[in-house]
Amino acid sequence: MKLLSIESSAKAASVALTDNGRLVSQFFQASALTHSRTLLKMAEDMLSDLEMTVSDVDAVAVSIGPGSFTGIRIGVATAKGLCWGGDKPCIGVSTLEAMAHQLRDRKDVIIAATMDARRSEIYNACFLPVGEGVERLCEDRAISISQLADEANNSGKTYFFVGDGAELCYNAFSELGLPALLAPEPLRLQTAWGVAMAADGRQPEDASDLAPKYLRLSQAERERLQRLAE
Amino acid sequence: MKLLSIESSAKAASVALTDNGRLVSQFFQASALTHSRTLLKMAEDMLSDLEMTVSDVDAVAVSIGPGSFTGIRIGVATAKGLCWGGDKPCIGVSTLEAMAHQLRDRKDVIIAATMDARRSEIYNACFLPVGEGVERLCEDRAISISQLADEANNSGKTYFFVGDGAELCYNAFSELGLPALLAPEPLRLQTAWGVAMAADGRQPEDASDLAPKYLRLSQAERERLQRLAE
Repeated sequence: MKLLSIESSAKAASVALTDNGRLVSQFFQASALTHSRTLLKMAEDMLSDLEMTVSDVDAVAVSIGPGSFTGIRIGVATAKGLCWGGDKPCIGVSTLEAMAHQLRDRKDVIIAATMDARRSEIYNACFLPVGEGVERLCEDRAISISQLADEANNSGKTYFFVGDGAELCYNAFSELGLPALLAPEPLRLQTAWGVAMAADGRQPEDASDLAPKYLRLSQAERERLQRLAE
Repeated sequence: MKLLSIESSAKAASVALTDNGRLVSQFFQASALTHSRTLLKMAEDMLSDLEMTVSDVDAVAVSIGPGSFTGIRIGVATAKGLCWGGDKPCIGVSTLEAMAHQLRDRKDVIIAATMDARRSEIYNACFLPVGEGVERLCEDRAISISQLADEANNSGKTYFFVGDGAELCYNAFSELGLPALLAPEPLRLQTAWGVAMAADGRQPEDASDLAPKYLRLSQAERERLQRLAE
């Protein structure tokens, strides 16, 4: 199956083309340009440089959150646009799970995917590397680093951190004397290749069912609710 | 310094744009298309999607071998073309050294960059991860795996394998009971990002001085010499 994968949940954007799980092409960009300007163009250029079009793709995968509200909306909208235009099915995957797949080679650790969620919290989910994949240990959640440290302390395992919250957590764990590892640089941030690995083997669905999963209300919604409450 | 890096020494091709060492964009392709068809187009598309042209780049870096004769010739020719067209200087780096940089995060190992050189040999060079970079332990060379195993046995260190010869060497070392690690999949093959890291801080030179370093004569040259000898 030829899968076109899209990742734009944070500052970087990337697209990838995999063929039955094998990485055929990936185009990554971490510039100051907005994803709305670059993402679709990158997907078009990647396919064109493979001498392909969307019609040659069997399905589209995209990370649906958690992450930047704007970034996720652009990713999901781009995926829906490509699916509707080409009448293709879609696979939405957790941003955190996609990142965890990037570290699944390393055994005897708990992979902790973490994104800085501001307001003293991280978006987090933990995974065990199992065989060629990962096994989810908890749902995607917004928690404090000290909560995660308590869990790690009870588990007795080394936590292997990935994501834009990885350095923050690694430093906190190191200060607490908890065993921790930091993903090497090119595997630390989310990539479309991670999205492709997380989507591999999943049943594609109708693109109309695809929706972002933010885990939290947006700032605008929070402020509106607060105004209403007052 | 904005550096455009090019890697096409084996089956995959990639281009990257770094800004003072920071990865801004990378475009990777491992398809059945020939590098002569894809490489320049990928560089043009990457720059165009960054809203840049070659004139915005300060220098071009390229891996000059060892590797596939055809692949290296295409990479070096593309780099020269871009340099001459835009009047830019150039940096040529060893394919093996570029790969080693992809693993420099891992300490307490010897990084062994290896490419399958056929005829029972590998192209190899070994490196120590030091600080933010790597320290070269030997020149690029074509040797047998058993020679490398002898060196490893004497060193008492774990060898961390990268490159398209990595799996071959890892399996041989494992059978011999020598401590070995295999680079995780996305860091195992050469990338333009590795070329950029190897080129970082080096003084660019005139593109006319750039030449491939094959380590070995091509098959055509070997056969010609053999015919002459007969």
